[in-house]
Amino acid sequence: MNPDASPEVPDDEPAPQAALGDLPADDFRAAMHRVADLVADYLEDVGERPVMSRAEPGELSSALSAEAPRHPEDIDQVLDDVQRLVEPGITHWNHPGFLGYFAISGSGPGILGEALAAAFNVNAMVWRTSPAATELERRVCAWLQRLLELPEGFAGHINDTASTSTLVALTAARDAALEGSVRHRGLAGRDDLGPLVIYTSDQAHSSVDKAAIVLGIGLDNVRRIATDEAFRMDPRALAAAVQEDRAAGRLPLAVMPTVGTTSTTAIDPVAEVAAVARQEDLWMHVDGAYGGIAAICPEHRAAMAGIEAADSMVVNPHKWLFTPIDCSVLFVRDEPALKRTFSLVPEYLKTQGGDTHLMDLGFQLGRRFRALKLWMVIRTFGVEGLQARIREHCRLARLLASWVEDDPDFEMSAPVPLSLVCFRARQDDPFNEELLARVNAAGPVLLSHTKLRDRYVLRAAVGNIRTTEDHIRQAWELIRTTAAELDREAGRES
Amino acid sequence: MNPDASPEVPDDEPAPQAALGDLPADDFRAAMHRVADLVADYLEDVGERPVMSRAEPGELSSALSAEAPRHPEDIDQVLDDVQRLVEPGITHWNHPGFLGYFAISGSGPGILGEALAAAFNVNAMVWRTSPAATELERRVCAWLQRLLELPEGFAGHINDTASTSTLVALTAARDAALEGSVRHRGLAGRDDLGPLVIYTSDQAHSSVDKAAIVLGIGLDNVRRIATDEAFRMDPRALAAAVQEDRAAGRLPLAVMPTVGTTSTTAIDPVAEVAAVARQEDLWMHVDGAYGGIAAICPEHRAAMAGIEAADSMVVNPHKWLFTPIDCSVLFVRDEPALKRTFSLVPEYLKTQGGDTHLMDLGFQLGRRFRALKLWMVIRTFGVEGLQARIREHCRLARLLASWVEDDPDFEMSAPVPLSLVCFRARQDDPFNEELLARVNAAGPVLLSHTKLRDRYVLRAAVGNIRTTEDHIRQAWELIRTTAAELDREAGRES
Repeated sequence: MNPDASPEVPDDEPAPQAALGDLPADDFRAAMHRVADLVADYLEDVGERPVMSRAEPGELSSALSAEAPRHPEDIDQVLDDVQRLVEPGITHWNHPGFLGYFAISGSGPGILGEALAAAFNVNAMVWRTSPAATELERRVCAWLQRLLELPEGFAGHINDTASTSTLVALTAARDAALEGSVRHRGLAGRDDLGPLVIYTSDQAHSSVDKAAIVLGIGLDNVRRIATDEAFRMDPRALAAAVQEDRAAGRLPLAVMPTVGTTSTTAIDPVAEVAAVARQEDLWMHVDGAYGGIAAICPEHRAAMAGIEAADSMVVNPHKWLFTPIDCSVLFVRDEPALKRTFSLVPEYLKTQGGDTHLMDLGFQLGRRFRALKLWMVIRTFGVEGLQARIREHCRLARLLASWVEDDPDFEMSAPVPLSLVCFRARQDDPFNEELLARVNAAGPVLLSHTKLRDRYVLRAAVGNIRTTEDHIRQAWELIRTTAAELDREAGRES
Repeated sequence: MNPDASPEVPDDEPAPQAALGDLPADDFRAAMHRVADLVADYLEDVGERPVMSRAEPGELSSALSAEAPRHPEDIDQVLDDVQRLVEPGITHWNHPGFLGYFAISGSGPGILGEALAAAFNVNAMVWRTSPAATELERRVCAWLQRLLELPEGFAGHINDTASTSTLVALTAARDAALEGSVRHRGLAGRDDLGPLVIYTSDQAHSSVDKAAIVLGIGLDNVRRIATDEAFRMDPRALAAAVQEDRAAGRLPLAVMPTVGTTSTTAIDPVAEVAAVARQEDLWMHVDGAYGGIAAICPEHRAAMAGIEAADSMVVNPHKWLFTPIDCSVLFVRDEPALKRTFSLVPEYLKTQGGDTHLMDLGFQLGRRFRALKLWMVIRTFGVEGLQARIREHCRLARLLASWVEDDPDFEMSAPVPLSLVCFRARQDDPFNEELLARVNAAGPVLLSHTKLRDRYVLRAAVGNIRTTEDHIRQAWELIRTTAAELDREAGRES
């Protein structure tokens, strides 16, 4: 035992009340108003900061005490330290120059919603433990289901991340294929099963692989189907792979087309994939974590024809619907099947009232009130406002692409179906790597990268709600001048 | 296509800037200050509201429009509707009379932390995407590791829920037992594996069963070991069950003792379970989601001797450490093994800098900045303040238990090792069910229930940071008088 840790066993005397309870009400109110200004100031000036944190590894760690403080500290001191110690270590995803990965937004209405949800602090595991949380979640998911033109009957619920949504969907897919026997008997030590196989494209997200690990499918049984020149899954190659697996005694379970792949936002030919899925009796799970959101615009929905045939589909409002992380919506065609996979009601969770208990829809019992922020975002911007912002992001991406195409020193690396531009300097990979590093070190912009056909490619993702044409123009100027500078340096060296 | 949904494909003209971007800065600042007061008011008067929502099923749903609004709505209107429509549908987990399930707290410092985290809106998937989020998470987990007296070398990280933490731990346990072959080969269609078996007590949480479903272990292979008169796992029964499974060609993987079971907060004899685990080469995962937090008090830590032998342990600061939901810390002895199970680094996530990338530690790629609220809670209350609050909750539970024991109309149903009191009226089950329903309908208090030895039992869980002796006294008065009233009614009827 740690000798500092007041080893005496306390007696049953009450503690002085002043040392108990929450932060005093007046102190909390003052601190909450300080946070209101701190957050409002942050959103107003975040664009002036370098996007990528300039902290060195270990810099914050070494500024923090090795031991938790024994005594209470003043909340204002703690908030000072948020500004002094934490903020310099933040890479500003909420910065209008954040063009890396998929750019996301904690929009104003969403931040308000998170603050409220933290105060309510409900766990919506069953209906009764917060009727509003369950019913608001169902309603905003129904709004989205209609906006995405998914068929009536599709039911949606909110998970933390697309990784979870995909894992939950594939757990149900596994049970559907094996008629529920997995729930009770598991997969190991059975002589009635061949290896299980799932199919996705060579461009699909790593969450599919992680689900395969957890589910006991195994990475060797994830078929990465080849893609065409626009990085879209080849349905004929899919059909051939399924037939080959069946012939070898393996059991094809599910196929996961993507609408908006991570590297290039390619949109798989979902209708053709769906035809194979129907033919081969595969569960089709559509990964629309990022791109699926764009289907609220009819012109993008048309490019995703076939998603209405899905057995399940994930879209992440925390990616492109201006909702703070985390908020991932999983839609399923047959929700009773999902419940048959997951529902377990121990005595201590048996309650009256309500016909939806969110705990029945996945493996997590704890359910935050994530619907509140999403509802506030949708109402504050309105569907037309959300569509306008998504269209503006796509317009900005096409604009950047047009500049790349017009510049003889650069080339496009992939089509631009949504709001992501993949491009590279017409130089070798080390040049492009160095270009990315210098651009990101400059401050006003953050790009990320990928590899396409074994070449290093820069990614500029437009998706932050505060990004304007000026930011994109500034980013392109920086990229162009940095490349020219690198080119001059190379000339001098050789 | 929906004809209302502006079907024309937009041209490449820029949208008017006023219709784009975030909520205007001044509007956001004003709304954030309104939320500051709304939250401060809520915390001041939540104790005056009925704990359990009186909403009928469908009440909120029917007040919400079936379609998402097409046009933007004023943020003040939206906040009005939060108060008018949403709040009546909330069951107030942040109410000092909330004694159901495990009582939790969204404390002031935690709420401030969530608001800030929503504004920063980082995804700490790799170090570089927010160094502060990764390093603060490591540091607060290291603080907890020392406070819980887990051995040096244990590494902690934060997940959303204990369900996830347990699923992640058991995924690693499965790989450890099978020497990593599951990651690649999966479980199905292999003739080198028998059924996999995991062990826990007949009192353990349903998250173990859900993990068994997802992992392909199967519910039939979850051994629910018998418990003693105090609802603690019997280590001899555990050893016998393991040997029986081995003899039958099954493969024992892991054992999960609980420190603070859901029904009664029983603390399994972890040291003895650990001895079996060592003998039988099982992974030991300790479920301390609720009770494990109490180990920051030396007298409770002593009652949990043996947790230092764990391979993994979960504790939930969102349960009994005053941190808003969600925040679950998973500690593992061999973090490199966890990484071998989960790490997959696609090209688009390859980055420089930092030696911890949180995405390597589980299946979820998206990682909220959950450490911020936890750090703010620990600093604001200090370790001694946290200990004082936990001890006060235990004192209040013992006080309630003493009143139950002194009342001839009631009986205790389980020991009170922590802050939960299980008791019942000395009547039949329907009487106790009706008692619970009436007490909960009254307003000032929410209790939950369980079944112990086939009898219906009431649960009063002390854990909200605002709960005082007065609340417990008021709850007991209500329970006593309601029982007397029921008894009189029964007398009149017979």
